[in-house]
Amino acid sequence: MSRTKGGSDKCSCRLVKEVNQLKTVVNAQSKVLAKLVRQMKDGCKKKDEEEDGCTFCGLNPCIKCLNPDVLYHLGHNTDTTDFPKVFGDVKFVCMGGTPGRMEAFAYYIMQEIGLKLNPATKLADMAEAGKRYGMFKVGPVLCASHGMGCPSISILLHELIKTMYHAKCKDPVFIRMGTCGGLGVEPGTVVITTEAVSGKLEPVHEIVVHGNSVLHPSQLDEGLANEIKSCHDPRTDKFDVVIGRTMCAHDFYEGQSRLDGAFCEYTPDAKMAFLEQLQAQGVKNIEMESLAFAALTSRANIRSAVVCVAILNRLEGDQITTPHEILSGFDKRPATLIARYIRKVLYPVEEDSDLASEAESEDGDGGAGDSKPPPPPPEEEAE
Amino acid sequence: MSRTKGGSDKCSCRLVKEVNQLKTVVNAQSKVLAKLVRQMKDGCKKKDEEEDGCTFCGLNPCIKCLNPDVLYHLGHNTDTTDFPKVFGDVKFVCMGGTPGRMEAFAYYIMQEIGLKLNPATKLADMAEAGKRYGMFKVGPVLCASHGMGCPSISILLHELIKTMYHAKCKDPVFIRMGTCGGLGVEPGTVVITTEAVSGKLEPVHEIVVHGNSVLHPSQLDEGLANEIKSCHDPRTDKFDVVIGRTMCAHDFYEGQSRLDGAFCEYTPDAKMAFLEQLQAQGVKNIEMESLAFAALTSRANIRSAVVCVAILNRLEGDQITTPHEILSGFDKRPATLIARYIRKVLYPVEEDSDLASEAESEDGDGGAGDSKPPPPPPEEEAE
Repeated sequence: MSRTKGGSDKCSCRLVKEVNQLKTVVNAQSKVLAKLVRQMKDGCKKKDEEEDGCTFCGLNPCIKCLNPDVLYHLGHNTDTTDFPKVFGDVKFVCMGGTPGRMEAFAYYIMQEIGLKLNPATKLADMAEAGKRYGMFKVGPVLCASHGMGCPSISILLHELIKTMYHAKCKDPVFIRMGTCGGLGVEPGTVVITTEAVSGKLEPVHEIVVHGNSVLHPSQLDEGLANEIKSCHDPRTDKFDVVIGRTMCAHDFYEGQSRLDGAFCEYTPDAKMAFLEQLQAQGVKNIEMESLAFAALTSRANIRSAVVCVAILNRLEGDQITTPHEILSGFDKRPATLIARYIRKVLYPVEEDSDLASEAESEDGDGGAGDSKPPPPPPEEEAE
Repeated sequence: MSRTKGGSDKCSCRLVKEVNQLKTVVNAQSKVLAKLVRQMKDGCKKKDEEEDGCTFCGLNPCIKCLNPDVLYHLGHNTDTTDFPKVFGDVKFVCMGGTPGRMEAFAYYIMQEIGLKLNPATKLADMAEAGKRYGMFKVGPVLCASHGMGCPSISILLHELIKTMYHAKCKDPVFIRMGTCGGLGVEPGTVVITTEAVSGKLEPVHEIVVHGNSVLHPSQLDEGLANEIKSCHDPRTDKFDVVIGRTMCAHDFYEGQSRLDGAFCEYTPDAKMAFLEQLQAQGVKNIEMESLAFAALTSRANIRSAVVCVAILNRLEGDQITTPHEILSGFDKRPATLIARYIRKVLYPVEEDSDLASEAESEDGDGGAGDSKPPPPPPEEEAE
């Protein structure tokens, strides 16, 4: 009797699951239908709008007068690079510290969004001529390394924003992925930032222009943070994801109250008091680029997010002694979430092959990958 | 008659030159003799002092308690790297922006100081495991890339200073070489910095510790600046060398009053007024690392210098449109001066082979090059 009951429970449980899945498909299809109807109603109007150019706000009005515009650190200029042709299809700009990490991410996202390379080719470093950053392009995803610290990422952002402008990109989303020191979270936890705060705990990025401080707000897109968080599957992912404030320091040692720098003029007690103060203010992690990233993307009205994995819990120490192989597993966690998010945006319902091929067909001249049907959703653990 | 007179003039001219050369040799030998006598007088005392450890001041007293000390971004730690053996002979720490530039400098300095590699080997990137910087060692010269901006060079300096500490190095000199925007100087001019000033024109580097601003002076070693300048030969070098103040900005566009960034909220007139104000205060160039470099080396009482070549004159424009081959010639100018300086320190009198071999014999286990007699002074133009 109990066996029959158990079987029936299992059966209705599966039915409920299937109904839910079908509802999700119907919802997604309704959205696509509504979008298509809207586009048909708008007719040529939509096309004209698209031809207007890049969708960013608040940019330097003089950019259009630069002839050519030399993006020195990326090694491109508007005379020699056909920006709309090479970068016009970019929808996601992903950034991380080192060229190696971003090259690995580029190959990973290629697989995750179902693109593949001609076997006789490999991804080129598109910023090689600039000698400063690594930059790789996989269809609609541009992957660039930003180095360490706000000045370094700020140069990259100025030049990537101009790249998107010249390429007439439509609403590209910018995401920074990286590592960080966690505050009261287990090593390996992924932290998604709501707002970046300075070493003085203010949500502003300071630049000095003509001798004066100019402050720019450093909030990040709450909706995007939640969308990325929703890509976490607590049932199968063997790590936590939290949302919170991020302190952005301008150095790794004294600015983060470490006791192990070449210089240290405070006591361990003062350090702990400071870290506890940070925690009390909702700070979940410390890194070195989020302030400039948040401020510059926000000035251009770009939807952006910072997704970092904690490689240690700063309440428990300063030195990074975790073995290399574990750290490299941690590294993949932000990449896993971001890949799922990108996949979800590109293919709202995986089963809808029309939609999938539509998204793929946007991989134009500038795309590194040849199209193929999207693979099934990644079910395996990322590590 | 006139021919005889000309011959006699030529002869006495050569004699004067020879007398001057001999005087230089005698002076150098006197110094070496005095040093030897001093060392003999001091006897074992000197040896004891040398065994005490690194000669830096003001370092974090806790470094000695770190067991191991993990230099995370360089990929070394005191458990796995024998610092005195690998780095103990370092006398010059040279830094520049990109790994490529520093690798090229390493091979160049190898040739200039008369070291050579076993033909079956090449220079290894000693910071490869850290994935952030490039680091190459050629006998007593350590060459490292620092990335862009103060935060990036600050991490490197903390870890290089700790490297020198663990290696028990004696008075190593730190030199940053790079490119910069010039102010009222011809493109291609080399600027040696007297002091770095912030965007607010203050000779201090600000770090934020526990929520509070802490300011560190950013003067550089005047004697070292002059020694490097004296390596310029105005008769044969086809470029100028000037000494002056350097403004260090925390970004490349707005912080340096460029009109060609993604954002620009000031007029061309305001830009020119600011650049002229800088000039009036003795600022000769603008770059992005000198403040942290000057402040951190100065805190440890390290003799240090910043030697940058101007790749444009900012009074004439913002964009770097100089052809690549000319820029790459410019790049070699700071390297040429620094190589001459290092050579002069290592071999005070080139002809004195005893001295030369003494200096070479210090290329111990950590040295990349096998010793050979020093080559003649470089007479060819560096470009």
